Amino acid sequence: MYEGPVQDLITELGRLPGVGPKSAQRLAFHLLSAEPEDARRLARAILEAKERVRFCRRCFNVSEREECRICRDARRDAHVLCVVEEPRDLQAIEKTAEFRGRYHVLGGAISPIDGVGPERLHIRELLARLDAEDITEVVLATNPNIEGEATASFLARQLKAIGVPVSRIASGLPVGGDLEYADEVTLGRAFAGRRTL
Amino acid sequence: MYEGPVQDLITELGRLPGVGPKSAQRLAFHLLSAEPEDARRLARAILEAKERVRFCRRCFNVSEREECRICRDARRDAHVLCVVEEPRDLQAIEKTAEFRGRYHVLGGAISPIDGVGPERLHIRELLARLDAEDITEVVLATNPNIEGEATASFLARQLKAIGVPVSRIASGLPVGGDLEYADEVTLGRAFAGRRTL
Repeated sequence: MYEGPVQDLITELGRLPGVGPKSAQRLAFHLLSAEPEDARRLARAILEAKERVRFCRRCFNVSEREECRICRDARRDAHVLCVVEEPRDLQAIEKTAEFRGRYHVLGGAISPIDGVGPERLHIRELLARLDAEDITEVVLATNPNIEGEATASFLARQLKAIGVPVSRIASGLPVGGDLEYADEVTLGRAFAGRRTL
Repeated sequence: MYEGPVQDLITELGRLPGVGPKSAQRLAFHLLSAEPEDARRLARAILEAKERVRFCRRCFNVSEREECRICRDARRDAHVLCVVEEPRDLQAIEKTAEFRGRYHVLGGAISPIDGVGPERLHIRELLARLDAEDITEVVLATNPNIEGEATASFLARQLKAIGVPVSRIASGLPVGGDLEYADEVTLGRAFAGRRTL
């Protein structure tokens, strides 16, 4: 529909996840009307990030060095691992300040429907860390959805077989939520996971 | 939260319209995991578009040359103008193949709440075209929302004062829609705008 570079820009923006043809158009026209310096800063940020950011060789978190900030931090407990799907999940847990161990980022979750089997995730590397880093506990913090639960079950089986203590983050009612409006599955989980006071 | 270039990328993506902090994070991690060539292509498309695309000096449509494809097209009626808010509205009308005249892109709509007064739009240039291009009809195709209607009324007053025939695109029920589910304002407009058969 549009002339060369406008169409190219719309096409490239449309490849981003969650950006449909209409949003791609809106973003493209925003960039075309923006200050040249603003648009250039975005382009530069993309190039810089691709150039300088890699994945931590130990835990697969994003990092500018061979090892990420958390793996390099000597004050953290090196024998407790928290397993997450993506670096953004790691950041979410860091914000709670509840966990002082290290992480292991799987790079996704098992999802047969999307063709993601265990071999596509960093599970082999996780198992290798157990011995090498003398891991005494693993917390499974994959998402509480179908794929995340499947991944957690899969890992729990393997880790138990090896003999490593393994736990799963709790499912239940969100803090500040209303019992009345909770879905049955969540409420059922909250019940099953009740704790003695 | 993140280290340097990752945070920079999230910040820059977060400046795009409709992209909140969570989406910016999702887009950033998508780009970080993408093939380097894919990310570079997006960065290049942004730079290319900023470099090569300008606004048509006649109608303010996007263009690679001084004048856009439509203004250069000798087969189009040069004496009928359709006034739209943005280049994407122009494209939407082009897709209908109902209009064979030229366009005038205002660059927005009057919106006191956003601090956009008539002087921020290409209205002066529109009025200058009336004489210079011997315009015999103007169709107002701004959006049928508060800002678009206000802009259409404002322009209609000025154009009528000059003596140019002016019309407004019809509001009414969308084709394929259900009368029962139409909102009252739209149904009222459809009624008021009824045509003799």
